[in-house]
Amino acid sequence: MNVVCLGAGNVATHLAIALKAMGADIVQVWSHDFKNAEILAALTKARAFHNWKNLDRNADCYIIAVKDDAIPAIAAQLLDVKGIVVHTSGATPITSLVGTGSGYGVLYPLQTFSKSKAVNLTLVPFCIEADRPETLEKIDAIAHLLSTSVAEVDSEQRKVLHVAAVVAANFTNHLYHLSAQLLEQHQLKFDLLKPLIMETAEKVQSALPVNVQTGPAVRNDQVTMQRHLELLDGSANLQQIYQSLSESILKTYHKKD
Amino acid sequence: MNVVCLGAGNVATHLAIALKAMGADIVQVWSHDFKNAEILAALTKARAFHNWKNLDRNADCYIIAVKDDAIPAIAAQLLDVKGIVVHTSGATPITSLVGTGSGYGVLYPLQTFSKSKAVNLTLVPFCIEADRPETLEKIDAIAHLLSTSVAEVDSEQRKVLHVAAVVAANFTNHLYHLSAQLLEQHQLKFDLLKPLIMETAEKVQSALPVNVQTGPAVRNDQVTMQRHLELLDGSANLQQIYQSLSESILKTYHKKD
Repeated sequence: MNVVCLGAGNVATHLAIALKAMGADIVQVWSHDFKNAEILAALTKARAFHNWKNLDRNADCYIIAVKDDAIPAIAAQLLDVKGIVVHTSGATPITSLVGTGSGYGVLYPLQTFSKSKAVNLTLVPFCIEADRPETLEKIDAIAHLLSTSVAEVDSEQRKVLHVAAVVAANFTNHLYHLSAQLLEQHQLKFDLLKPLIMETAEKVQSALPVNVQTGPAVRNDQVTMQRHLELLDGSANLQQIYQSLSESILKTYHKKD
Repeated sequence: MNVVCLGAGNVATHLAIALKAMGADIVQVWSHDFKNAEILAALTKARAFHNWKNLDRNADCYIIAVKDDAIPAIAAQLLDVKGIVVHTSGATPITSLVGTGSGYGVLYPLQTFSKSKAVNLTLVPFCIEADRPETLEKIDAIAHLLSTSVAEVDSEQRKVLHVAAVVAANFTNHLYHLSAQLLEQHQLKFDLLKPLIMETAEKVQSALPVNVQTGPAVRNDQVTMQRHLELLDGSANLQQIYQSLSESILKTYHKKD
């Protein structure tokens, strides 16, 4: 299988390297920043290109892994290519690819990627969608090269998944940051929280989060919550987040009517 | 070492079992609910008791692991015991134990415990504090029986740690719940999010959370945030949390002045 990779960021890098390892040929890499294209091309023995005139139009699969708002401009370059075209975005509908390739669809890995950290893709859920059954079969085969967890998810559901991922991962990481910042202000090390953070994530691998909630809000422990809010008097931002998340927990477990 | 365990909840259970495994004798267990005391006593070959007249006053260490607001009433029963007295609370000052035992202090494990899930205590940070150096030495020895991570933390700092733990663990778990609920409303499985949740926690074991933030808010991607807020129109609670956490991320990375 010949693959052209459009994009050279975190997602493009992880997918291209994993596909290469599974025997695919990465023939070309494009990036709006040519240097990044060269780096990923070197890692996958591909050729980097920048001018669309040089695009290889005979590959089997074109993977668009760029920022959401850059997808339409890339798609416009892929109208007459021979292979199928997929994007990897959680928030972009399949219709953004209408007219491209010999078929088009979505290959959305539900995971957070950093270039500096290897991720085992085998367990990452790949959410796939296609314009028609023949394309779905091809995308399904590619997804199964990468992972054992492949699910057909339509554009509406994928939007929901993307919001849920923002809440469970991006917001969670920001809470880690706010607590790290609070500790730093009091000469305490973030290291102290690391085992707690791991255990909190591990717990919900086998239990529903609603069943393992702990802390002052779920106990409706008003005295402790009041003390915490007073301690946060100097950090208005965290104080407000403390209040709104505590209220949400209270609503969940202590409905008034 | 002879230990009396006051409390039979999650923390008491994990500590008593681990101390027993390290060679301590759990001689007695008390709980306001006698049945729970009997269960923990059976697990640790101790005797359960309910009437304070039956308290063994000659143990080496009395561990109070009960709800915060129940600590003073227990402490009042431990004025003339022979050994040292410790509580395990993040939010309660050491002064709540003044006058108890032959010395008193705090043994606060910074971890979340469920009865149904074993926790490896070896890596759990134990925050300790004492009324005087001799007591500190004793509490330090007990903490080192349980864990390799022991830190002296005074009552003021422990309060901060407790707030940070609420933010990084309790609030995080609630975000997991809100995303699980959103998925359920759209016939999607929470399983899809589990690898993402693990990876998000694993990332900050070796990097500062501020350096690995991803998502629409850190990119200042207003279009995606607006779409997400529209999708959350039916769930006012999550919509409000989405807004306030996104604003907090924007403030952190895109300061206006």
